[in-house]
Amino acid sequence: MTLAIECADKIGGEDFEGAAREVLERCEAVAWHTEVAGVTERPFLCESMRGVHGLVRQWMRDAGMTVRRDAVGNILGHRAGKSFSSKTLVIGSHLDAVANEGKYAGVLGVMVGIAAVSLLGRGALEVGIDVVGFAGDGGGLGGGRFGTPHLGSLGMTGQLGREAWGLRDKEGITLEEAIRRFGLHPEELEFAARKKGELAGFVEVHVEQGPMLEEAGAAVGVVKSIMGQTGMQLRLVGGGGHGGTLPMKGRRDALAGAADAILVVETCAQEMEGVVATVGRMECVPNAANCVPSEVRLTVDVRHEDDTVRENSVECMLTTIQQVARDRGLGMELLSRTDTGAVAMEMEMTARLIDAMRGETVDSGGRSVQKLVNGAIQDAAVMASNAPTAMLLVRSAEDAERGVRVNCEDVAEAIRVMHALLRSYSTA
Amino acid sequence: MTLAIECADKIGGEDFEGAAREVLERCEAVAWHTEVAGVTERPFLCESMRGVHGLVRQWMRDAGMTVRRDAVGNILGHRAGKSFSSKTLVIGSHLDAVANEGKYAGVLGVMVGIAAVSLLGRGALEVGIDVVGFAGDGGGLGGGRFGTPHLGSLGMTGQLGREAWGLRDKEGITLEEAIRRFGLHPEELEFAARKKGELAGFVEVHVEQGPMLEEAGAAVGVVKSIMGQTGMQLRLVGGGGHGGTLPMKGRRDALAGAADAILVVETCAQEMEGVVATVGRMECVPNAANCVPSEVRLTVDVRHEDDTVRENSVECMLTTIQQVARDRGLGMELLSRTDTGAVAMEMEMTARLIDAMRGETVDSGGRSVQKLVNGAIQDAAVMASNAPTAMLLVRSAEDAERGVRVNCEDVAEAIRVMHALLRSYSTA
Repeated sequence: MTLAIECADKIGGEDFEGAAREVLERCEAVAWHTEVAGVTERPFLCESMRGVHGLVRQWMRDAGMTVRRDAVGNILGHRAGKSFSSKTLVIGSHLDAVANEGKYAGVLGVMVGIAAVSLLGRGALEVGIDVVGFAGDGGGLGGGRFGTPHLGSLGMTGQLGREAWGLRDKEGITLEEAIRRFGLHPEELEFAARKKGELAGFVEVHVEQGPMLEEAGAAVGVVKSIMGQTGMQLRLVGGGGHGGTLPMKGRRDALAGAADAILVVETCAQEMEGVVATVGRMECVPNAANCVPSEVRLTVDVRHEDDTVRENSVECMLTTIQQVARDRGLGMELLSRTDTGAVAMEMEMTARLIDAMRGETVDSGGRSVQKLVNGAIQDAAVMASNAPTAMLLVRSAEDAERGVRVNCEDVAEAIRVMHALLRSYSTA
Repeated sequence: MTLAIECADKIGGEDFEGAAREVLERCEAVAWHTEVAGVTERPFLCESMRGVHGLVRQWMRDAGMTVRRDAVGNILGHRAGKSFSSKTLVIGSHLDAVANEGKYAGVLGVMVGIAAVSLLGRGALEVGIDVVGFAGDGGGLGGGRFGTPHLGSLGMTGQLGREAWGLRDKEGITLEEAIRRFGLHPEELEFAARKKGELAGFVEVHVEQGPMLEEAGAAVGVVKSIMGQTGMQLRLVGGGGHGGTLPMKGRRDALAGAADAILVVETCAQEMEGVVATVGRMECVPNAANCVPSEVRLTVDVRHEDDTVRENSVECMLTTIQQVARDRGLGMELLSRTDTGAVAMEMEMTARLIDAMRGETVDSGGRSVQKLVNGAIQDAAVMASNAPTAMLLVRSAEDAERGVRVNCEDVAEAIRVMHALLRSYSTA
């Protein structure tokens, strides 16, 4: 208790609001670096990432860190611990950006990490700190440029072996070639891997991209677990024809079948508590106003914190869609399916994060810590395999026009929490 | 009766099968001229139409016709009538091609016309004949390159006034400019117009693009009327979000709403005898696997031979879709709506066509003439305003792989019928 009050006193002198304003400005500056004008889109090791690395390198240096890049394209700012043998606490998120995710997904977490370190002052900590800006992002079912999400954290956990070098992007460029073109050396990938036990932990800060914290009236929340996910691509095949001359009876309209399928996915999800399921992408062939659609491809994304519940829900969907397709004389094909299990966050690191949230809230009277199940799969899910991992979510501010945004006060709170977390490793 | 037998004798000597084979070869040759490799796509006055005109000009000349082009880009082969004051019978169809319609829509009718004239020999007819290859095609709801279908027949019926010159294509090129670029002179559009009373009639031959003749076991059929059509574009607007983090409850998923709308269209159509309705085109925003769709645009195409029935069906659809959208908290907007009334074919010209079909069928024992309502809106619907118009449909051969096709024997029958129709104007 004494320590907590001591910290609160110290921290009371920090300008978290000012730091938050700077973080938001930095997110804006990063967003200018995009492959597609008008939206923020930075696939894995794209040209516009060079400019982002230039900015981040400078900001990390300004915060007193030494900066390096590993062979998969992660950028890391390091602050030494009290001794050469200190373990390292990694904090950060991804710098890649998927269209539609906005300016704050990933980038906010890196900027909050830099800000928290920047406010630390000179006192030694028991741990070294790496603020990481990961290369690679989920990119939805497509998994980003190389069809595999989270390449950066996979590299850092030693899961990017030689067999991954041959992955190809849409233009046929291999992962190996992309790494070389960016000026990095795939031979050095093994040095990107951080051994188990080498890391004190990993903490990711990310904007929630959902309404739970808003509903709870909380600026930030801690993640209990990251949902498991099933991603599928379905194809429905019927018979095409001229929309004016083909009678309704006997039509095998693939789009009408897809409409059934979309409603099946919705209904199955609603039947099981906590399941979220989305048909987000859909292609209609030939997609002409006067042609009966002959083929539709659609994606189905199903998530839940309990893998068995998710698997049952998926089976319900597939069986029912198969049935409605058969009733319409359509062929149904499961083109692809990937299943990723749910990942629990580590107890001790999460407890430390909760202490940081609680301990220093001046008005923490009756305010309870929000514990959430996160439906967005982030680098934390990958890092959890090699490091005690925890995750902090920042409340999303609704903005239909400009994508997911954040409030400055909530960012200030996130910086405060991360700063307090780092101070908890204080040797003082 | 005597005349009919006489004709049958004469016509027995013609090689309709050979002519049909040539027609099919010519359709193949025309199909090579396309703007998009792999599919047959020739929008209004596109570059690839130059090559088609080159071929058609030669074939018309080979059939003894003098060839000219009018200012809207129709190509016309003329065979003089017995006197300078003879009226002209126009036969033909469109040379433009919409993707997915295949090689035979339109082109077949022009080639059958040329073949029928070619087989006529030197005897004078009471009428002059123009075989026309129209510029412009329906192009679905989009109405082709300039958003207005049937530009060629509109030009021939004097319905393309100066106000139409400013129509623009997707690249901003005006109709006037497109006509000039093709080497034609928009100032001469008035000369393309054929006055009422100047024409003896118009007869269009077209592949059915539907299953009715196949089901009736008939090679060809005559059109009673062309259905009216309502074409609409709808927009459903909901709220987007991350598919993993947005709970099912409270989602305003525009694609789920669109699924409802598609099924509403299908159900309303099935409830009224003879209505055909199609949702053929659909765009989902942002169309990403892990994003809840925030907006969907879709087309609705509704057709029926009775305008009142069609209008009632459309009202049923719009009211119900509005309701399901409201129930889901979605906005629904009718972006565009065009209504085209049904067009009856002219009695006398149709009777003459039926005589041509009946009179010379050697095995016409109990075979009845198939009279169809045509759901595809062709140039015949436009020409009907200025000329006694009839229409002959040729049975479609099913071919899911290569689009709509035709059988050689059916084409031979179409040539025989058109030849007999022309012979019915014989002065002998």
